Amino acid sequence: MTRVVALTPNPAWDVTYRVDRLLPGESLRVRSVVARAGGKGVNVARVVRALGSASVAVCPLGGPLAGPFADDLDADGQPAAVVPVAGAVRQSVAVVPAEDGGHPTVLNEPGPALDDAEWAALVAACVAQVGTAAAVVATVSGSLPPGTTRERVVGLVGALRAAGARVHVDVSGPGLVWAAEAGADLVKPNRSELVEATGVDDPARAVGELLRRGARAVVVTDGERGLTAYEAGPDGPASPAVVGRARLAAPVAGNPTGAGDAAMAALAVDPDQPWAHRLALAAATSAAAVLQPVAGAVDRADVDRLLTHVVTEPES
Amino acid sequence: MTRVVALTPNPAWDVTYRVDRLLPGESLRVRSVVARAGGKGVNVARVVRALGSASVAVCPLGGPLAGPFADDLDADGQPAAVVPVAGAVRQSVAVVPAEDGGHPTVLNEPGPALDDAEWAALVAACVAQVGTAAAVVATVSGSLPPGTTRERVVGLVGALRAAGARVHVDVSGPGLVWAAEAGADLVKPNRSELVEATGVDDPARAVGELLRRGARAVVVTDGERGLTAYEAGPDGPASPAVVGRARLAAPVAGNPTGAGDAAMAALAVDPDQPWAHRLALAAATSAAAVLQPVAGAVDRADVDRLLTHVVTEPES
Repeated sequence: MTRVVALTPNPAWDVTYRVDRLLPGESLRVRSVVARAGGKGVNVARVVRALGSASVAVCPLGGPLAGPFADDLDADGQPAAVVPVAGAVRQSVAVVPAEDGGHPTVLNEPGPALDDAEWAALVAACVAQVGTAAAVVATVSGSLPPGTTRERVVGLVGALRAAGARVHVDVSGPGLVWAAEAGADLVKPNRSELVEATGVDDPARAVGELLRRGARAVVVTDGERGLTAYEAGPDGPASPAVVGRARLAAPVAGNPTGAGDAAMAALAVDPDQPWAHRLALAAATSAAAVLQPVAGAVDRADVDRLLTHVVTEPES
Repeated sequence: MTRVVALTPNPAWDVTYRVDRLLPGESLRVRSVVARAGGKGVNVARVVRALGSASVAVCPLGGPLAGPFADDLDADGQPAAVVPVAGAVRQSVAVVPAEDGGHPTVLNEPGPALDDAEWAALVAACVAQVGTAAAVVATVSGSLPPGTTRERVVGLVGALRAAGARVHVDVSGPGLVWAAEAGADLVKPNRSELVEATGVDDPARAVGELLRRGARAVVVTDGERGLTAYEAGPDGPASPAVVGRARLAAPVAGNPTGAGDAAMAALAVDPDQPWAHRLALAAATSAAAVLQPVAGAVDRADVDRLLTHVVTEPES
């Protein structure tokens, strides 16, 4: 069975405030406060476990909220490898109004920079978790700490591949291109991240750019329009070939936060399956995440049910 | 010299987020994060020291941010008496946009409830700080913890008065009326708090209600229109007499957060002076607080300069 090592380079203590309504410039009473360990990699780790595979969440943690963060993972039964760092784990505050359809406003703190020794310790912790197991997928998800360089990202992906892991990357900004350059086995941007990272407006050409840089595969998510996987075509990486597509026959309504992380989890749990199978599981798991009120959760029964409503190319 | 025991029954870890702009429903990048120990009583304690008098901040503190909170007071040289409690100190998040004149949106968490033993320990800590010094003013400021009863407020004010302190109260909601009923030496609502607490629309009648309930004096703040002090008139408490007024000849522009706490501090430092003197210092200190970017700070030189621009009745 595949084991997933899920790195969150810039974890967040996710705080949810329920308010009557959010009026800019006003002083508001928060009706309820819920807080939990978060960050995209933590979501991936949790969904991997919900799908029945093993995962470990790797997180740099420091500051006063490091203890509650680790305690929350522990209470959830989530195996974790914590790398102590000096900077304080950031908060991400979601303000959910009772009005306006409950659409949240999210305030994302930038998070702490890591020094060279801390980054090296983080890479070493990931490599140690890869260990000598036969089938390990290492995922890298979310924002990168402020000041993260190309050298660091290339070094991370290279070290994980050298240790024998497949490396899947879903990071925002230039880190996506750097991961491709380091030969990541899979990069998973959504449509807007794809354009933002490459600076290329046309999606097919932007995918070609990531493949040309060195990514082995690119999976582009596009909300309810589903997922498309690309690999280098017969004429080379700049002419990408669609190797699979999957979408739900009818979209589900709910909370889209964490849907991309659920897809990352599904793509990681069985990487030797054909693309149609992997993409179908990703589409169903992503939709199952939309049905949950919080990110990082799916109900396995929802995944199984939704799998029967997935349309794939080629048929799975 | 008067010593001020400044209680904050529901302290807050004040977090300030600078953002480009606050758009409800969007996911926003926080540009900078500043956090410090806060709450109205903490502001009072800090301003008392800036005015050259001694203060101690009394706070119930629990949870992961209790340590950073106490450390912040310590780094500021602010004497403090911390009462450990089980509930986590709340956060108050101010979101300051670069646009819209920088007017903040503030998200106030409710804070933890205290159990009977914790409330008793808090009262005991305040009484211990009153000690046997000749001239002590105890201030009670800000919101009360969820579930605070009339019995608790009456017990607190009574215990402090029995210990020999004068008791000044600036709390929101029904606690203001309860403090009056307990015979508080001074209650300091602003115009809207006065109406909200008493349910009486006419300010003079609302003041009469607080005096009739038992308050020895009422000081009403009304922004740039200044402060008015009332005591029971010759016909009894229901017919209040204005015993002094003070306002700045020309208002100052700036950050009004903490201006009321600055007035509380000024009213506490020299309670044996005539009303005109006390109110003039309160008006000048309040205006000096408006000139500062954060609550709980004044520059003594600003206070001295602004004092020469205060108009009082009777003339001071």
